[in-house]
Amino acid sequence: VDLARLSFNQYTCKPWSLEQAVAACVKREIPAIAVWRDKIAEAGLPRAVAMVRDAGLRVSSVCRGGFFPSPDAAERARRLDDNRRAIEEAAALGAPSLVLVCGPAEGQPLADARAQVRDGIAALVAEAAAAGVRLAIEPLHPMMISERSVIASLEEANALAEHFPADAVGVIADVYHIFWDAFVEREIARAGSRVSGFHVSDWSTPTGDVTADRAMIGDGCIDLANLHDAVRRAGYGGDVEIEILNARAWNGGDLDAWLDTALQRYAAAGTATTASR
Amino acid sequence: VDLARLSFNQYTCKPWSLEQAVAACVKREIPAIAVWRDKIAEAGLPRAVAMVRDAGLRVSSVCRGGFFPSPDAAERARRLDDNRRAIEEAAALGAPSLVLVCGPAEGQPLADARAQVRDGIAALVAEAAAAGVRLAIEPLHPMMISERSVIASLEEANALAEHFPADAVGVIADVYHIFWDAFVEREIARAGSRVSGFHVSDWSTPTGDVTADRAMIGDGCIDLANLHDAVRRAGYGGDVEIEILNARAWNGGDLDAWLDTALQRYAAAGTATTASR
Repeated sequence: VDLARLSFNQYTCKPWSLEQAVAACVKREIPAIAVWRDKIAEAGLPRAVAMVRDAGLRVSSVCRGGFFPSPDAAERARRLDDNRRAIEEAAALGAPSLVLVCGPAEGQPLADARAQVRDGIAALVAEAAAAGVRLAIEPLHPMMISERSVIASLEEANALAEHFPADAVGVIADVYHIFWDAFVEREIARAGSRVSGFHVSDWSTPTGDVTADRAMIGDGCIDLANLHDAVRRAGYGGDVEIEILNARAWNGGDLDAWLDTALQRYAAAGTATTASR
Repeated sequence: VDLARLSFNQYTCKPWSLEQAVAACVKREIPAIAVWRDKIAEAGLPRAVAMVRDAGLRVSSVCRGGFFPSPDAAERARRLDDNRRAIEEAAALGAPSLVLVCGPAEGQPLADARAQVRDGIAALVAEAAAAGVRLAIEPLHPMMISERSVIASLEEANALAEHFPADAVGVIADVYHIFWDAFVEREIARAGSRVSGFHVSDWSTPTGDVTADRAMIGDGCIDLANLHDAVRRAGYGGDVEIEILNARAWNGGDLDAWLDTALQRYAAAGTATTASR
């Protein structure tokens, strides 16, 4: 476990401002942070840039662009413009990647929505490359297909990314979204240099909000060390984001303790599994 | 839409006994039924056989066998014996297929559980073939991996089935479980003559019980006609099971109206989509 490559995805402690999230990194000597656009907007981009720079933090990614599909062409154009602002924010923050959440279908057939995702990425790819920001397609768990992402597997994300140059369009390997796939190691290897992020949490079946019911590392059934090995074998040497979206932690939980536990569990998961193999 | 190939999966109206489910088929001239083992046990096998025979119904499948993985070898052996009884019941009822739900992992690594599923099927395949019952692997939606099935995609089910003769081991195409897959048509074509059942319902994101929160046909985002075409192109000419597991319908809903609506929606879904293409 390489703590020098650890990143705190700030939605793990969503109620915190960017300022609080940055302070939490500094206090714990976490060297990187993944920032969300609503938090950037809250702080203002120049102040956000100054905060992470002054704290000496890397920004592992900006969350998130995407949301391309709409039956309305004018709405699709507005969303492209919003993605352009997201690319600018990522570039200003020095983030190598802009995470793309690619959906939902908005009442259209899945095939149509998927075509609009591809068109949306195609429209942005030159601008993103010029800005030095990689568009990172994040496949979400298939249970989120109706309200969040029509890209539902790493295989699908790879097939989509392969329409574009590897340095311009990559994929995110988030264990929560992809661990269930019997062929996940094949697809991580296939992604190779396109792997643009590795996000960690754990899985227990959601009982309410499918987005924010992720388990603490070690409390679910994900073989984290195995997936971590797979992304390393694929050549990924970037930051590992702790991203544990959990509404119970957000609503009155002790967020400092939540983050501390995540750090301890992350370190333990790597050690324990290495020992057991 | 071929109503001559329609089957009523009785868990659509789970609170009904087998006797009530058979009567519901006769009343509506539904020519086939899918029966569950708890309902067979309730009626007793000889009486269950007599009921469906006297009503002139085909039995499209028996639900369900499987549940092979366990860290305890003696428990795995007990479950194989239970599967042997399920094969006998399917044979006695004249069902061409026994549906297999292949999980959960019971605390083991997914890879170990998946190996036990393969071993379990291997142990049964000769007996099932001798009884004239095909073992039909049903991949479940990836959100059910933790408590129900480690076989989470049609690609995985196909790869598993291909270890065995096609007439002995098939796969179930249940739209609720597989519709999200961008490569589902490829995998249905690959399954070809192994397609052993086609189950219909609709998808809206579960908000509670992930097993029994299926949407009424037409109330979700599944392109039913497209998937139906895909199984037909694969050569499937067997029964189409209406299987809409929904706890709200079961708990105080009007089950006759639920089934009537499903029949109407099924007929309309085929017609509407054929017209729109």
